[in-house]
Formats: sequence, structure tokens, C-alpha cells
Amino acid sequence: MKQAVNLLSLFLAAGLTANAQRPPSLSSPDVHSDHSITFRYYSRTAQTVSLNGEFLPTPLPLIKDTSGIWTVTVPPVQPDIYPYSFMVDSVQVADPNNTYIFANERFKRSIVDVVGDAPLIHSLQNVPHGAVSYRYYASSTLGTTRQLLVYTPPGFKASGKKKYPVLYLIHGGSDTEETWIKVGRANFIADNLIAQGKAEPMIIVMPYGNVRPKPMGDFTKDVIDDIIPFIESNYPVLNDSWHRAVAGFSVGGGQTLNIGLTNTDKFAYICSYAPYTATEEFQKNFTNWMPDANKMNKELKLFTISVGTEDFLYNSVKQNIAMFEEKKIKLKSYIVPGGHTWMNCKKYLATTLEGIFH
Amino acid sequence: MKQAVNLLSLFLAAGLTANAQRPPSLSSPDVHSDHSITFRYYSRTAQTVSLNGEFLPTPLPLIKDTSGIWTVTVPPVQPDIYPYSFMVDSVQVADPNNTYIFANERFKRSIVDVVGDAPLIHSLQNVPHGAVSYRYYASSTLGTTRQLLVYTPPGFKASGKKKYPVLYLIHGGSDTEETWIKVGRANFIADNLIAQGKAEPMIIVMPYGNVRPKPMGDFTKDVIDDIIPFIESNYPVLNDSWHRAVAGFSVGGGQTLNIGLTNTDKFAYICSYAPYTATEEFQKNFTNWMPDANKMNKELKLFTISVGTEDFLYNSVKQNIAMFEEKKIKLKSYIVPGGHTWMNCKKYLATTLEGIFH
Repeated sequence: MKQAVNLLSLFLAAGLTANAQRPPSLSSPDVHSDHSITFRYYSRTAQTVSLNGEFLPTPLPLIKDTSGIWTVTVPPVQPDIYPYSFMVDSVQVADPNNTYIFANERFKRSIVDVVGDAPLIHSLQNVPHGAVSYRYYASSTLGTTRQLLVYTPPGFKASGKKKYPVLYLIHGGSDTEETWIKVGRANFIADNLIAQGKAEPMIIVMPYGNVRPKPMGDFTKDVIDDIIPFIESNYPVLNDSWHRAVAGFSVGGGQTLNIGLTNTDKFAYICSYAPYTATEEFQKNFTNWMPDANKMNKELKLFTISVGTEDFLYNSVKQNIAMFEEKKIKLKSYIVPGGHTWMNCKKYLATTLEGIFH
Repeated sequence: MKQAVNLLSLFLAAGLTANAQRPPSLSSPDVHSDHSITFRYYSRTAQTVSLNGEFLPTPLPLIKDTSGIWTVTVPPVQPDIYPYSFMVDSVQVADPNNTYIFANERFKRSIVDVVGDAPLIHSLQNVPHGAVSYRYYASSTLGTTRQLLVYTPPGFKASGKKKYPVLYLIHGGSDTEETWIKVGRANFIADNLIAQGKAEPMIIVMPYGNVRPKPMGDFTKDVIDDIIPFIESNYPVLNDSWHRAVAGFSVGGGQTLNIGLTNTDKFAYICSYAPYTATEEFQKNFTNWMPDANKMNKELKLFTISVGTEDFLYNSVKQNIAMFEEKKIKLKSYIVPGGHTWMNCKKYLATTLEGIFH
């Protein structure tokens, strides 16, 4: 059996690739009680290894010891969930010793969870938990069967009398339908706010928005013509605009503006987070846009645009806010510190969940 | 807006890291109509890039052109879903141009789906689809809240009159609770076999089995004391042994033997795929094991052990089969070509789904 043990060690450490070399077992990331973090990487042959993290202004070099273990310790950081990666010579990689991966089409970053002294709004707390389900819907718009995720709140009954409001929640560019759960922790944020009585029990639908070549037009059509009918025929939901919201981040924030503002009869809540709007589609749809502001302001119960002051889209988003204000559309802007990050996304979402369906 | 466009291009291409360099947009993998496949990788600075794939006996080098694009074309392969990775100098990476990732704790491999001329049993076909849900359960055994996935079949009603049988399905070492869905396509295999009338509509529970230090003992306790009660209090299920099955692959195949054979009053179906059993726990539990074979053979409706003739555990699994036969336990062995792979896992699972609950 000895050979099998050794073979399995290889297999466990590095998958089933033929040329896998077993690295020493490393603890990385290692979050210390003062919220400082040690990162480790093993390579005997790399020339340079550096750490890129959203808690760092610039990359930090790791230092190699004689056994091939590269290490760096970062001073205490604010408790939160942060993406990071290593640059090993020319190759960006996720941390091979960390099982917690940033859900993205590229999967090249890891996540470090710096737990606070008190539980944070995105923490798994001792409250009733909702479920998150993969569902498959036929998209007539895109001519294929696509997947989406559906959060149902604690105590949800598919065939009970209670009907639920629905938030349609869209990820950013290169993210996937899982990013709002695995990085944004939308389900735990909802569980916690519902348990605290601050958010209404609701269904949250997280589609996959990366649609080419027209992410605004085609995805808007997919949401309106395919996703909403799928949800409304499979879940007990309230189907008037006052019980329907749309929100999204970055590219998904731009999609949110398009989906919501061209369908204010269907969505009374539009919450756009750091929207990316520098596209021909957005220009075409909104530059010479002449909305009936009075009608729209009656239809909309809440229209918010959120952005961080260090977001690389900050100026662009401010221009968007000014543009909507100029057109007399009533909106709340929610300007906070921070960049174009999922740390900020979690705050934007918590604010949305507290603000809708009341 | 020009700056924003350029910044977003960076962001879309490489995530939000500060030092991201945008690679040219590459098509990889590129599956051709004759089932040959072209793989591409971009690096101006790498010294060597090679391809490792479960369709290859040994790694293949990629060749660099003057623009830094590395390429290799693999001759036609049998239609299936295959894991692969690149070795870039010393670093094993998933394909950065492929959004389809092998769900594993390490996420270092990609998947290429070589579609057949006719749909395969794991293909997304035009049949009714079940749902796959993330659920959270309190584990008294492990002292924490853990996640698991639950497949519910097409037409499932949480509060209807119909009650369902349940298969508990366990992944391999270093896999996650998602691997049976994302690599093993358990949900599509079930959807297709149910649509063909070959499998009973059933619930499939996929827990996360990577429990240390005692993956057999502690995980068995977690399944029996925590997971089964959670499922039975949250889903309309049949709760006698004739409507309960356990199956698993590799480390999960060893766990399957331990869970099933120490609880034949609870599981009438035990299906172990290429079990890894070279552990002290297994030796302790089974070497001097003296089962009441008559009683056990009455309790078990189906006990199978599956393995491929090129599996690195082939000899070890044959020894296990001989050991159980020596103890007069009735079992079916299912020996097929192939190695310790998820290509084989899909076959093992399809055979199980057709064989249980009839």
C-alpha cells in the first residue's frame, strides 16, 4: 500500500497531473489575532514572487528562505474579505494553499477573510439561513439554456401562501453568476439583515450577465423576456413593479441602469453600484435620452447610484449622476470611501437590502 | 471616457490587480470539428510552456511565435470532458482564456468539453432540468455550520405528496462539494436518465467531505448524525434504508465504504468508485472486521465497487474486492478501461443511478 500512499499524497497536493511535484504543506494565508497576515508560497525555481492584494497600495515582494518557501507578512488590516494573488515571475496565480477562490471567469485570485472582533454583516452568523439554488432557464433571446442562481430566504415555502418580492442582482465584468455569493456574500448579508428585521424576506436572482456583443441590449432583453418569466412561473413572487428591484456592479451597474431605466413600469427600485457606462450602447441609449421625468419619478420608489471616492470610475459615475439630475430624474447618490472593490460592493448591497420593499 | 475604456479593458482582461498586463484576446481551447484541439497561452517572458491533459499520456510543449503566443494542437480525442493545465516555467496554471474551471480546492486546472456528434449522457440536453441548491447545516460533529449541495429532480415539490429516495454522493480528495456538479455533471446525468425513464426521480446530496484528521470516522458521524437529519427535516424524503444510497470517488470512495458498511441498516445501496483505502482508519475498521455476512447481504440491495484498469489504485481496489468476497459480502465489481479520472466517474455514476431505487 506504500506506493498508493505516496501517489495519493501527490494527488491530494497537486491534482492528478502527471508531473505534479508535491510542495511542502504550507499555511497561507495565516491571519493573526492582530489582523496582520502572513502569506507563503513554495517554489525552488522562481526568480521573484510578489503579493498583490486589495489591502495593499502596491505589490509587496515575498522573501525566499533556503528551503524554497517564500514569505511576507502584511501589517494589520481592517477586517473584511479581500482578493489577492501572487505574481510568480511572469505568471499571476491564486494562492495554491488557499481553498477560498475569487469566483471569476479567470479564477486567478484568492480570498482572505479577516474576521472582525465582532461579526460583520457578511459573516456566517448563528441565524436561520436561506438557500441558494442553481436553476436552468431557456433563453429565447440568446438561443440557449443558461444558468442562474436564486437565493430563497429562511423559511421559504415554494407552495405556501406567502409571495415574495424579487431583487435581480448582477455581477461585474469577468465575474460569474457565483461572485455575488462567493465574494459578495449576498446570501449571508440577506440572512443577517432579515434576522435583524432590517430587510424584508425576498428572493434574489443572480443571472450570468456576460453577454456579447451587446451586454446592455441583449442582456436587458434576456432579463425582461426570459429570466423574469422563468422566475415568476417557478417561484411564488409578487409581480408588480413595487416588488421588483434591479441592482448590479460595474459592467453590471451599467446593465442595471439600462434594464431599470428603460423599464420603470417593471422596476420601482434601481440600485447601480459604480456603473461602467463608457460603451457605445450606453451613449446611444442615454446621451440624447428624453425621459418623462415626472412619470418616471412617480414610478420609481428608489433610484440610487453608489461609488467609492477612490474608484477608478469615480469621475465617470459623477458625470452620470449629473446627467440624470439634469434630466430631472430623482436619485440618491451614495458616495463612500474606497475603490472599485467587492469590499465596497457588500456595503452597497447591504444599503440596498435595507432600502427596498418597505 | 477614453481612459475609462482602457482601464476597463485591463480590468476585464485580468481582474483588478494593479500590475495587470492585458494579454491579446486568445481563443483557448479551440475544439475543432474533427475533435482535435488547439490550446493557446500568451507570455512574452516565459521560457517554457507545456500542456498537461487527461487526454495525453505525457505533457506536450507549446511553441511560441514572435508575438508571444504559445500554441499546440492535439490530435482528435474521444468526446468527453477533460481536465488540463499549463506548466509555465515552474508554475502550474489553469488556462487564463477558458472560463470553465475544474472545481477543486486548488483550482489549478481547466476543463475542455469535447462535444460528441450525438449528445452524451452528461450533456445539457433539451429535457426538464432539476435544481441544485446550496444549503447550510449545523454540524454537531464538527462544531460548525457547513455547506452542501442538494439536487432536486425536475418537477420537485417541497410540500407535495411525493416523497423521494436520496443518494448521498461524495467527491474525491482535494475536490469540493461542487466537483460532482461542475466536473461530474451529476445533475445533467440525472436529468437525462430520469427523462429517459432509466433512473427514478431522486434527491442527490453532495456534502463537503474533506474533514481532518479523521475523514472516515468524523465524516461518517457527520453524515449519520447531522446531514441525514438535516435532509430529512427539510425535504420530503423516504427515510428507510431501501430508499437511501451512498456513493463516492477515491477518498470519497473509501468514505463510502465506511459510511455504508458500518450502517447497512441505513443504506441498502453502497457504490464505491476507485476507493482510496490506504489509511490507518480503514485498516483499523476493516482488517479484522468480522461482519455478519448473512444479515448484511439481506440488508444490502446493491453493493458495487468500480475501478478502471489503468487506475493507479487498480491493484489496491482488487485487493479490497477480494477482502470483501473473502468475508462473504455479496458485491458487484464494475471494471472498465480508463484511469483515476472524472471521465470514468461519470460512467460509474450513470451506472449507479440506473441501478438504485428500483
